[in-house]
Amino acid sequence: MSPRVEDGAAQRGRGRRPGGPDTRAAIVDAARSSFAAKGYDKTSLRGIARDAGVDPALVHHYFDGKAALFAETMAVPVNPAEVISHVIAGDQGRLGWRLVETFLTIWEPPDRRDALVALARSSMTSEEAARMLREFLGREVFGRIAASTGAPDPQLRGALAASQMIGLVMARYVVRVPGLADASRAELVEHLGPVLQGYLVDEPRRPE
Amino acid sequence: MSPRVEDGAAQRGRGRRPGGPDTRAAIVDAARSSFAAKGYDKTSLRGIARDAGVDPALVHHYFDGKAALFAETMAVPVNPAEVISHVIAGDQGRLGWRLVETFLTIWEPPDRRDALVALARSSMTSEEAARMLREFLGREVFGRIAASTGAPDPQLRGALAASQMIGLVMARYVVRVPGLADASRAELVEHLGPVLQGYLVDEPRRPE
Repeated sequence: MSPRVEDGAAQRGRGRRPGGPDTRAAIVDAARSSFAAKGYDKTSLRGIARDAGVDPALVHHYFDGKAALFAETMAVPVNPAEVISHVIAGDQGRLGWRLVETFLTIWEPPDRRDALVALARSSMTSEEAARMLREFLGREVFGRIAASTGAPDPQLRGALAASQMIGLVMARYVVRVPGLADASRAELVEHLGPVLQGYLVDEPRRPE
Repeated sequence: MSPRVEDGAAQRGRGRRPGGPDTRAAIVDAARSSFAAKGYDKTSLRGIARDAGVDPALVHHYFDGKAALFAETMAVPVNPAEVISHVIAGDQGRLGWRLVETFLTIWEPPDRRDALVALARSSMTSEEAARMLREFLGREVFGRIAASTGAPDPQLRGALAASQMIGLVMARYVVRVPGLADASRAELVEHLGPVLQGYLVDEPRRPE
């Protein structure tokens, strides 16, 4: 998500802040304030541009949509839209396994994991952070995945999937429960894949 | 867990603190310090008695074992040993459903839920609390449940079950993900029961 070629010069003389590294930082600052004050759903890219004193086109120039901008304000070092597109694409009979595999791959690099653990912790202690995460996960992550399958009850399915992935993160990386903290990625994919598949795609199973 | 009939008088003159409400409070204080300093596993009831300056028999008089004393220091308003015994007893083919049902019943009363949410939050932010919770959940809760089934790989199975229950708590009560926060207990038992059953008892399923 590094800035592309500068086109700020074209904006000069319109009473707006021109492009450049400061502009990008001003957009991120305005976005952070807006997400914190209004939550994810009620924040608009147009409102962020207004708060930052820049042309809305500049926001689109620097960021690939609201989800990418949110990820940047939260210091999430991945573009969620790309990840989700990857999970949704491909064989629906393997969606659950692909979700777990993709998710664990994202968390693997230690520096990124530290950033994500910090984010997870803050979402547990601040109502503001919890609200942002709830709206963001609901709309951009698990909501999109659940809606992609055409299965009934997508909101509950997405929420169940979110609960297992939140629990995995907490148990493996934050609380570090033995057995889970030291399990290999392949083991976790084997055990969690069918569960995510069940939540997102299959019919619920009855007791025997 | 209210104090039973006082037998502190029998202890007098042995240089130990006699029984009474202060004794009980002194034991809880000593236990809290020991769990925080040494973690759950390395804390002993004998060491707590020594720290509190009471006879070890008095600790056993007031508390039904280390798990019950731990629950009291963490302000957990249930006796975990009783809950786990209830989950383990009965038809193994319905263990997963029974675990979810029991768990949700414990969390239902709003005042108890507030206490448990506070505990969950602190375990996410303090390494000390995380360690206590990790050792406690591993040994007294999910470890015991997983070991009761005789299925292979009990540590990983217990950890997987813990991850889903931690995630459920976080998603339903802390982050309050829509769809999960407002789901009924019966709905959650229907969806989560087979998953817990799978983690704790069944063979992992392969992709189709």
